[in-house]
Amino acid sequence: MKEFNVIEDFFKAKSIQRKDVIIGIGDDGAVTHVPQGQALVTTTDTLLSGVHFLPDTSPHAIAQKAIAVNLSDLAAMGAQPAWISLSLSLPEVDQAWLQAFSTGLQQHAEYYSVQLIGGDTVKGPLAITITAQGFVPFDQALTRSQAKPGDSVYVTGTLGDAGLGLHIAQNKCVVNDQLNREYLLNRLHYPTPRLMAGTSLRRLASACIDISDGLVSDIKHILKASQCGATLHVDKLPLSQALKVSVSSSQAIDYALSAGDDYELLFTVSEEQKGHLETTLASANVPATYIGQLNGNMGKLELRQNDKPFESSAEGYQHF
Amino acid sequence: MKEFNVIEDFFKAKSIQRKDVIIGIGDDGAVTHVPQGQALVTTTDTLLSGVHFLPDTSPHAIAQKAIAVNLSDLAAMGAQPAWISLSLSLPEVDQAWLQAFSTGLQQHAEYYSVQLIGGDTVKGPLAITITAQGFVPFDQALTRSQAKPGDSVYVTGTLGDAGLGLHIAQNKCVVNDQLNREYLLNRLHYPTPRLMAGTSLRRLASACIDISDGLVSDIKHILKASQCGATLHVDKLPLSQALKVSVSSSQAIDYALSAGDDYELLFTVSEEQKGHLETTLASANVPATYIGQLNGNMGKLELRQNDKPFESSAEGYQHF
Repeated sequence: MKEFNVIEDFFKAKSIQRKDVIIGIGDDGAVTHVPQGQALVTTTDTLLSGVHFLPDTSPHAIAQKAIAVNLSDLAAMGAQPAWISLSLSLPEVDQAWLQAFSTGLQQHAEYYSVQLIGGDTVKGPLAITITAQGFVPFDQALTRSQAKPGDSVYVTGTLGDAGLGLHIAQNKCVVNDQLNREYLLNRLHYPTPRLMAGTSLRRLASACIDISDGLVSDIKHILKASQCGATLHVDKLPLSQALKVSVSSSQAIDYALSAGDDYELLFTVSEEQKGHLETTLASANVPATYIGQLNGNMGKLELRQNDKPFESSAEGYQHF
Repeated sequence: MKEFNVIEDFFKAKSIQRKDVIIGIGDDGAVTHVPQGQALVTTTDTLLSGVHFLPDTSPHAIAQKAIAVNLSDLAAMGAQPAWISLSLSLPEVDQAWLQAFSTGLQQHAEYYSVQLIGGDTVKGPLAITITAQGFVPFDQALTRSQAKPGDSVYVTGTLGDAGLGLHIAQNKCVVNDQLNREYLLNRLHYPTPRLMAGTSLRRLASACIDISDGLVSDIKHILKASQCGATLHVDKLPLSQALKVSVSSSQAIDYALSAGDDYELLFTVSEEQKGHLETTLASANVPATYIGQLNGNMGKLELRQNDKPFESSAEGYQHF
């Protein structure tokens, strides 16, 4: 089966049609229209079998995760997603696998009103690269670099769930309660990009990043880009009920500090914007928790528990 | 070494800075500005070691080819390139390899005034996915679908060189003349995207595609999308001196019909635009050769040599 048949047969018919797509799948490139007053935001992420997902993960989940991790990057920029391009490396043309994968992809694309505008397929080890494009009003993009000492640090949702989910999926950890186990596995396989939070944070957050490699690892990107330090209170970390009842409290903190794949947003807010921010997030129904404060100790991250120093070997995900 | 270090250490400093890039490498996504009156054109292509290039190809050549094949897709749309994103799958962090690869990438990016705006690195088999973005004035994008019976068929440059180059690199064929051998290998390793041709063809060509899989294979995309047939004259195919003196004339035709990797443009022009087109291409110094004519025999491709039917088993590159 030829390349154009894979993309056309499995993906084209299922794709939603956005009005801003002039030419979609089926030409040398896609032609689209960026609305006036909006900047274009572009991000690329690759998921590789055995590295970013377990080889036995369902194709439906792989597809949805591949979209979600990219939309999560757009969310962290405060952007609204619009289009995705897909590069799919496949060991063989497995029709059942492609059927499930393309269905998962298009369900998610439809849910987020995102159109698949093009792609490439190659014969090789299973890997999915998605480039996502979206919009943000000019001068309203959230970055990593504008945080200031004194700003408060927040995270959305709960942390550590996907990390425990991974250990369950790898049989490194047993969670007997079925509902908790499912919840934790879903947090691993079906992360939710915090798009509403991202757009709500425009003009309110001083910096923002999504947590893909782990809290400790990812906050350091903000500290470096903004030339700040931070104190985080591990007793304030938002933990799900499922995580808390499944592992010890010190293990839960470890997962929350260092496990990746949560795809929550970590953001900072100046003192003046704090009140406005809390009202905005509450009215958008976005859960967010205060976890610490930035300071001037450039690049330094201090962890505290009940106001005493807390030692952690938490490192976050290492790519190489 | 961590992901952000690979991108930041090897790629960020070398990148050119375009004025339309508001935020480049180093955040969750890039923020860019599409000029008013222009549509955005996006394309993605993956090169996999052992499939799209031989494992011993120099990293410098791999990088430049990865850019060129993507810019060639933009050229086929009549677009002007602006930005690229890179997803790099690497078995290990090999500093010498990365140094050569990033230098090759940035030389080409600079030559084409294209800025690398972001990327992702993963640990895995050597593969390069580039997403290229560019602009085309609204309603001037070249497509595959607007050709009409009676239109003339043209190609830029010469065909078949990269195909013979591949056989030389694979030691399947010996070319003794050193200059010819180098020319043919360069056509394989360093394809030139026909950007000037693409922009010159706006409002003149009725359809356009780049030849990546081979002439016979790629013209069928136009025939299908435009619901036409075609007659091509194999005696009119443009062949380089290096190809002609290195193989028999029937082998040369085979290479020109079926070998991929030439990255020339194949385009169609209506009778009314022919004169205008030839003047435009001549003044832009773009070599193009008339090779045949479209007709109403939907999807059918007829090959003729000196006006007699020509039989060929040419099939073009099969992706799976």
